[in-house]
Amino acid sequence: MEQKLIFTNHVSEAVDELVEAMGTPAVFVLCDVNTRSFVLPALQAQSQAIAGAKIISTKSGDANKNIEALASLWKSLSDLGATRRSVLINVGGGVVTDLGGFGAATFKRGIRFINIPTTLLGAVDAAVGGKTGVNFNGLKNEIGAFANADAVIISTCFFNTLPQQQLLSGYAEMIKHAMLQDKPTLDRLLGYSVVYPVFDSEALLGLLRESVSVKESIVAGDPTEKGLRRALNLGHTAGHAIESLAYKYQSPVPHGYAVAWGLVISMVLSHMELGFPSEILHRIADYVLKNFGPYSLNCKEYPELIDFMRHDKKNPSPDAISFTLLKDIGQPVCGCVVSEDKIEAALDIYRDLMHI
Amino acid sequence: MEQKLIFTNHVSEAVDELVEAMGTPAVFVLCDVNTRSFVLPALQAQSQAIAGAKIISTKSGDANKNIEALASLWKSLSDLGATRRSVLINVGGGVVTDLGGFGAATFKRGIRFINIPTTLLGAVDAAVGGKTGVNFNGLKNEIGAFANADAVIISTCFFNTLPQQQLLSGYAEMIKHAMLQDKPTLDRLLGYSVVYPVFDSEALLGLLRESVSVKESIVAGDPTEKGLRRALNLGHTAGHAIESLAYKYQSPVPHGYAVAWGLVISMVLSHMELGFPSEILHRIADYVLKNFGPYSLNCKEYPELIDFMRHDKKNPSPDAISFTLLKDIGQPVCGCVVSEDKIEAALDIYRDLMHI
Repeated sequence: MEQKLIFTNHVSEAVDELVEAMGTPAVFVLCDVNTRSFVLPALQAQSQAIAGAKIISTKSGDANKNIEALASLWKSLSDLGATRRSVLINVGGGVVTDLGGFGAATFKRGIRFINIPTTLLGAVDAAVGGKTGVNFNGLKNEIGAFANADAVIISTCFFNTLPQQQLLSGYAEMIKHAMLQDKPTLDRLLGYSVVYPVFDSEALLGLLRESVSVKESIVAGDPTEKGLRRALNLGHTAGHAIESLAYKYQSPVPHGYAVAWGLVISMVLSHMELGFPSEILHRIADYVLKNFGPYSLNCKEYPELIDFMRHDKKNPSPDAISFTLLKDIGQPVCGCVVSEDKIEAALDIYRDLMHI
Repeated sequence: MEQKLIFTNHVSEAVDELVEAMGTPAVFVLCDVNTRSFVLPALQAQSQAIAGAKIISTKSGDANKNIEALASLWKSLSDLGATRRSVLINVGGGVVTDLGGFGAATFKRGIRFINIPTTLLGAVDAAVGGKTGVNFNGLKNEIGAFANADAVIISTCFFNTLPQQQLLSGYAEMIKHAMLQDKPTLDRLLGYSVVYPVFDSEALLGLLRESVSVKESIVAGDPTEKGLRRALNLGHTAGHAIESLAYKYQSPVPHGYAVAWGLVISMVLSHMELGFPSEILHRIADYVLKNFGPYSLNCKEYPELIDFMRHDKKNPSPDAISFTLLKDIGQPVCGCVVSEDKIEAALDIYRDLMHI
């Protein structure tokens, strides 16, 4: 089943229409402590379905996307009398939609659910792909299912209260999608600022719609992540390595920031290996530098960084390091194996581009 | 995805062929303590795939089909290095295939699995329908998913060591399927004895294949249990009530036995309400009496029994009691509401038929 995507800044009306079209079942809402305080009150005031819903809370943060939170969600649904006809509405970021989606997909062998992502990254991620799940045994998303929501309501109206870092973090994923698509899409994104001075939420909704449709078309060709979908890994081999390195040295960076720097590194590699146009590489690097700042890497850290790349879980073999690269904007090539020498050379160029 | 059904008494060869066709992935086997002792050694001796597999154990019994066993299975898979390409083979009765199927369907968002049911009831139940799950919060199968195995290997060669009660318990479900199908199928079943003196395992494999194909055709029309599949509830409204009553008075009866008595009660109601032929009713009642013996109900227990029927989880409303009945063999009518007076009259006739 495909999930219905609704792009709107009139969320409460959209919820009420959906719930009515479902036959007005009993509604349950999953929130975390943040969305319970900052998002839920307005929805309760404006949406009849949410006003009448039973509310279930979970802790915020990726560390709480675990089996205990899952069992607690199941128990709440069971104790509050949810039936097979009930609907769960997940209101929150990726932690809430991943946990709530998996909880719904497995409660009584699957009840319907609606996602209302409240972060930009969550909107881009949760909108398509049907990935749900929790962390387990020290591994991210070790337990889960591919399960589509009945509907995802995508709105930019929740983003006004987000910290700028979180907005930029989501925006990096949108830039990645544009790079996989075409130059006009990329131009529109690089010509827009998500932070200055207050972003235009209707314009952002349009860009978000474009971005999601890119991901949709890629995922549609590969729903269970066997091939094509690997293109979405663009920027992530280097990005995850930066994230791990920063985490190890106790100065963690937001995921999207690491992706932005990883995109620059993969553009450099793309230029070296596949002749990716240097003009575009420079434009993207400038945008990243201006909006995200640099990640200050020094050459002594190269071996450790490369080691993290080698152990990336999407890397097919521990002997080789493999990247998704671009021949040009819109032309991804998956599984490009690159030697360590070349990676080091690319990191040197990255540092030049970031004025380090 | 449909699951492949393989009816064979050469199980080891079938496993090896399947695993080879899958590209010889890493194999993990889930057993309970019984199948580990009585079934696994022979499979390990004869199947290369199972000889090389890592073995995971779980406790036997429905009380252990729970979240703790599920988390333990996930942890074993994770610690033993299972990847997305690995295959889990579930060797056991319904507890093992329900738990293992759900574990596989949710580990790393789903890995492939093969079921090898080792009980007659398990073979009939697990062969089609894709129901997997665990008990939770005091409720049966509260958590789970519809997930098809890649293949189910159905064999009667494991049944020789089963207690007679367990064989009969599965046979009652087969009789139910035949009643939903046609008279020739029913005649073949009633003409066969699963217990005397040693059953003919090749003949039983043929009957099992017929029985499974009945369930298959019903489930194919209704994969997520919204309508047609309710026909499979034949005999279960009264059967579950007997099971609950017996459990309450500390003399629990096997599920299949309760179904057999429930089938007799629903035939009586079918005769009263829909003109079901009394000749067939008498033949079925005689078969049940001869093979399963009577459930000794007395009329003081009627109100309690009827109360259990009213609270059956498949009953649509607490004010009415609803049954799947038959107009004739092969002609089910779902959702027949019957008054309490008529149910009491039917119970009187049931007692006559059972010579109580």
